[in-house]
Amino acid sequence: MRSVEWEAGAVKMIDQRALPWKLEYVRLETVEAVAESIANMTVRGAPAIGASAAFGMALAARQSPATTVEALIDDLRQYGELLNAARPTAVNLAWAVKRLLQIAESGEFNSVDDLREVLLMAAQQVADDDVAINRRIGAWGSSLIDQGATVLHHCNTGALATVDYGTALGVIRAAHEAGTDFHVLLDETRPRLQGSRLSAWELEQLGVSYDIIPDTAAGYYMQNSEVNLILVGADRVAANGDFANKIGTYQLAIMAAAHSIPFYSVAPTSTIDLSLKTGADIPIELRDPAEVTTPYGNPIVPTHFKARNPAFDVSPHRYLSGIVTENGIARPPFSESLRRAVAGDRV
Amino acid sequence: MRSVEWEAGAVKMIDQRALPWKLEYVRLETVEAVAESIANMTVRGAPAIGASAAFGMALAARQSPATTVEALIDDLRQYGELLNAARPTAVNLAWAVKRLLQIAESGEFNSVDDLREVLLMAAQQVADDDVAINRRIGAWGSSLIDQGATVLHHCNTGALATVDYGTALGVIRAAHEAGTDFHVLLDETRPRLQGSRLSAWELEQLGVSYDIIPDTAAGYYMQNSEVNLILVGADRVAANGDFANKIGTYQLAIMAAAHSIPFYSVAPTSTIDLSLKTGADIPIELRDPAEVTTPYGNPIVPTHFKARNPAFDVSPHRYLSGIVTENGIARPPFSESLRRAVAGDRV
Repeated sequence: MRSVEWEAGAVKMIDQRALPWKLEYVRLETVEAVAESIANMTVRGAPAIGASAAFGMALAARQSPATTVEALIDDLRQYGELLNAARPTAVNLAWAVKRLLQIAESGEFNSVDDLREVLLMAAQQVADDDVAINRRIGAWGSSLIDQGATVLHHCNTGALATVDYGTALGVIRAAHEAGTDFHVLLDETRPRLQGSRLSAWELEQLGVSYDIIPDTAAGYYMQNSEVNLILVGADRVAANGDFANKIGTYQLAIMAAAHSIPFYSVAPTSTIDLSLKTGADIPIELRDPAEVTTPYGNPIVPTHFKARNPAFDVSPHRYLSGIVTENGIARPPFSESLRRAVAGDRV
Repeated sequence: MRSVEWEAGAVKMIDQRALPWKLEYVRLETVEAVAESIANMTVRGAPAIGASAAFGMALAARQSPATTVEALIDDLRQYGELLNAARPTAVNLAWAVKRLLQIAESGEFNSVDDLREVLLMAAQQVADDDVAINRRIGAWGSSLIDQGATVLHHCNTGALATVDYGTALGVIRAAHEAGTDFHVLLDETRPRLQGSRLSAWELEQLGVSYDIIPDTAAGYYMQNSEVNLILVGADRVAANGDFANKIGTYQLAIMAAAHSIPFYSVAPTSTIDLSLKTGADIPIELRDPAEVTTPYGNPIVPTHFKARNPAFDVSPHRYLSGIVTENGIARPPFSESLRRAVAGDRV
């Protein structure tokens, strides 16, 4: 079961807004519908968004009425911009769009049908690669979790946030599969509660011991020496190791340092954006305040109450013990290790 | 309008669980009902709990069938234990119970009717004192808020958390009434959302500019240099200045230090417990995990999902710029300044 896949001419994805209550799928037959599903968080999680965008480009190629390769490439560029505009922070989206556009622009296609076929294969490859990459990430990272440890985790970084298996939760899964006995504290992750709604749902199925905690309680457990390791994902990693991740990650970074707790980001190299020198250049999405005041359609305060809803924050690299990638665990200095990881070298 | 008051032989209080939707009152005719209302958070906020307990003792005195002063004092001791057991962390509860018991035990009463009458007057005095004390706190603290500042606030410390006016929100109210123009960021304060449900409701009525933010976003706004001052309440302050407050306060303390932002606790001297040397001795209440998974009866995850719910945390005194009391702003070294404040000296 994958969070997103191609099925009979359409993109099929789990509707993550319906979890943990119902496992529902949506079937998207246009690239516009894919872009909308990314924007409204039917699908979320940087790698899952990347794969969705790749399938969206494959869908766009079939949807376009173009009869020449050149016209089709023009259409793909426009559809790519539509997809890129869906969410600004996670780089995997732009990375996947760019990857499919580069294939289209390679000049190797004589017919629109050939190009359509190859783009679908390329999108499929992005999805398949993601699963394989996550398993490699899990293998590198699982040794970080000691027998008897308690691991603090933020947001959702599991099978749902990727095509399958997960990044930070993939590390947790790999350690569990390797027989390590440990406990996970799941930040519930307001406002959208990805920790309590999605990560808890995944750990229930995997049989991993966990407790949901309010985001306000993370420091309490660190102060009480109950946290041995903090694992989070990433939506975009700059060349120096600064990284954007779900709002609340920055607080954990500061608290990890204050309590000398190892703090790792877990991400595939497709999340690393070497074009950005530092995290200061990462765009931060500001979402609808109604997600705070009326989560999932249930108002917790009157709708005229005012709120703010930044979706991500940026943690400076100095707080990071390492970044777990499919090519190993990148360590400081990150400007060096991340470059090698992206080049495919073992780090 | 007071959050709690005596009315025609009963304790009348605002049902804070119904806000911000409805301003409802409950009428409590037994001390058992008062204890239950404290435990289930119909009334909450350390000073409001203290006043409720005082009225609860006055109610207990009338409820007791005792016909001798000695028998009535025995009953009051038992009822006092019942009230004290309702919530362990805030010291104001035990402080108020002790204050009324000491009056009963003073040996000055010849009849049970006299004692009943005096205890009601004493409870009324606790409530009246609280309002006057909060206004003095507001006067001392309002100078901390500069024109154009942004103040971060956690939980609810306003008129609802006290008998009237408020402690940390009382400082905010005093600055607003003095004509200072500023903005307040309200941590929503999961799991019970006292920030978004109660503090936002109060600031709406006062006309103070505010935005609710998820607890996860506090660090983001500090990092972006948008927070000039952090004001929180306290449920118990130890002799050295360590203090217990709503879960999530400790995280703010660490982040305040990391960003060099002034961080103040605001509390009446009745919240200071000189019998405890440090915060390590403050009992921390662990509440029902259902408050996390099913807030206000609305399940956000299936009820079998596991969660933890510590209600308070303890912040070490070294993070505090000062403690605003009715006798002035106590500054480090707190072991000195708090002793003077409790003795009634100007600090």
